[in-house]
Amino acid sequence: MQYLHAMVRVRDLGESLNFYVNLLGLKEIRRSEYPEGRFTLVYLATAEGQPEVELTYNWDAPDTYGDARNFGHLAFAVDDIYALCATLQAGGVTIRRPPRDGRMAFAKSPDGISIELLQRGQPLPPAEPWMSMPNVGTW
Amino acid sequence: MQYLHAMVRVRDLGESLNFYVNLLGLKEIRRSEYPEGRFTLVYLATAEGQPEVELTYNWDAPDTYGDARNFGHLAFAVDDIYALCATLQAGGVTIRRPPRDGRMAFAKSPDGISIELLQRGQPLPPAEPWMSMPNVGTW
Repeated sequence: MQYLHAMVRVRDLGESLNFYVNLLGLKEIRRSEYPEGRFTLVYLATAEGQPEVELTYNWDAPDTYGDARNFGHLAFAVDDIYALCATLQAGGVTIRRPPRDGRMAFAKSPDGISIELLQRGQPLPPAEPWMSMPNVGTW
Repeated sequence: MQYLHAMVRVRDLGESLNFYVNLLGLKEIRRSEYPEGRFTLVYLATAEGQPEVELTYNWDAPDTYGDARNFGHLAFAVDDIYALCATLQAGGVTIRRPPRDGRMAFAKSPDGISIELLQRGQPLPPAEPWMSMPNVGTW
């Protein structure tokens, strides 16, 4: 038995690719368009052969796919949590749980999927502006 | 950057372990109890070192964590999709999208998290009772 992927539905493929690829740093591994079913699947991963995040983009997506608490988050270990949070923030993403401890941060995808970032190895030394940044909303 | 886990919140830890471990076949890799925060984390995977499913069990869980469409599913490749679907069904789990094609099936966790099962390698020859089994609800 092998873990393959987590699928999320996205309302706006361009906005989601900006979040997951340009800002978060995942790579697009492959893409399939299904004109008859009017949807596109895009598979993202840290690298080919790694577990994937499957984006399902229905061309006639509703205004919202809603948001609930039964699904929690997708978690990634990252090389420099401060650099990645700065990139996300510069791209307009709110850091909902700033990495005050140099170890853990949370942000949300454009469709409200919570993403946990964990510093690989030892936590970084606490540093501003993160140290004094408050939480924002839920994550 | 490394994909680590998907976290899901569960209302009933025993019921969820029955689903994910006894029926689906994941293994419990580690568990941490946090009496001060009144929650338990259980990490499951196909094997140690593989991507994990983190179960968060809040001891004072609400009646429901809700259910939305922004999160889609968690997908696993399996050795015998018919055998696994039969095990799930015998354990009281509805096969919402039966493997009529010998290739793909969907079921839901006790908290409404959709699980996709994909036959590893070539699809199995179509076979009853799956071939003539209708879909049930959403997945």
